[in-house]
Amino acid sequence: MASEQWSDLPKWLPVAPGKLLPAVVQDAANHMVLMQVEVNQEALARIAATGRVHYYHPGKRKVVAKGEASGHFQEIVEIRLSCGGDQLLFKVRPAGGACELGYASCFFRSLTPQGWETADPKTFDPEEVYPEIAFSH
Amino acid sequence: MASEQWSDLPKWLPVAPGKLLPAVVQDAANHMVLMQVEVNQEALARIAATGRVHYYHPGKRKVVAKGEASGHFQEIVEIRLSCGGDQLLFKVRPAGGACELGYASCFFRSLTPQGWETADPKTFDPEEVYPEIAFSH
Repeated sequence: MASEQWSDLPKWLPVAPGKLLPAVVQDAANHMVLMQVEVNQEALARIAATGRVHYYHPGKRKVVAKGEASGHFQEIVEIRLSCGGDQLLFKVRPAGGACELGYASCFFRSLTPQGWETADPKTFDPEEVYPEIAFSH
Repeated sequence: MASEQWSDLPKWLPVAPGKLLPAVVQDAANHMVLMQVEVNQEALARIAATGRVHYYHPGKRKVVAKGEASGHFQEIVEIRLSCGGDQLLFKVRPAGGACELGYASCFFRSLTPQGWETADPKTFDPEEVYPEIAFSH
């Protein structure tokens, strides 16, 4: 069980209340970098309890489960720690795209001589997955 | 020339003075996540001028070139931008390991039931590469 596999995370990475650590989320299978988030004490506790990525959402000012709106949860396969002990890398098995705009990765734009251009194909329709969000066309 | 390839980066990503953006550095060939840093206006200008990763070093309180002590520069092959426009992903060709402790990636420790364990082989001898740093044994 994933929930048992990571249950000791808070023990091995004690974090002071209010402290945020950057965390990179990478697809464990195809190695795409999916997103970059911040985690706090509560997010680490919820990761330990569920085996799924949780992070502090700065806009909502609270900890959210990745996928709680979309169903695109991210099961954690491996947890890596930086040399400084203050950054994390989550290797995950995603249930769907990470980006609310319809892409597997939030980093879907690439710099070209003409500026930032979409470099990845859409993997889902965000209007179907996030019906509560009004998308402009 | 790499320096010409990214020369318009500050134009396509204007950043206010004092603002820091998180940036993930990934090996373009083997897809390892090498490190996670922050970049400011000056770091982006130096990336544009050289085609190599520069970042704000919080300990030194200044922008440094990755590799300026070790020679392990990171040539930028691709620059990706997050959906929010406030995070970067640099895909790089590294001249050597990213981690001052002798590893290709700073994320060389993996969580196990016994805690954080070294999961990657050393790729260089840090005492040879960083002679000015005293390592304890």
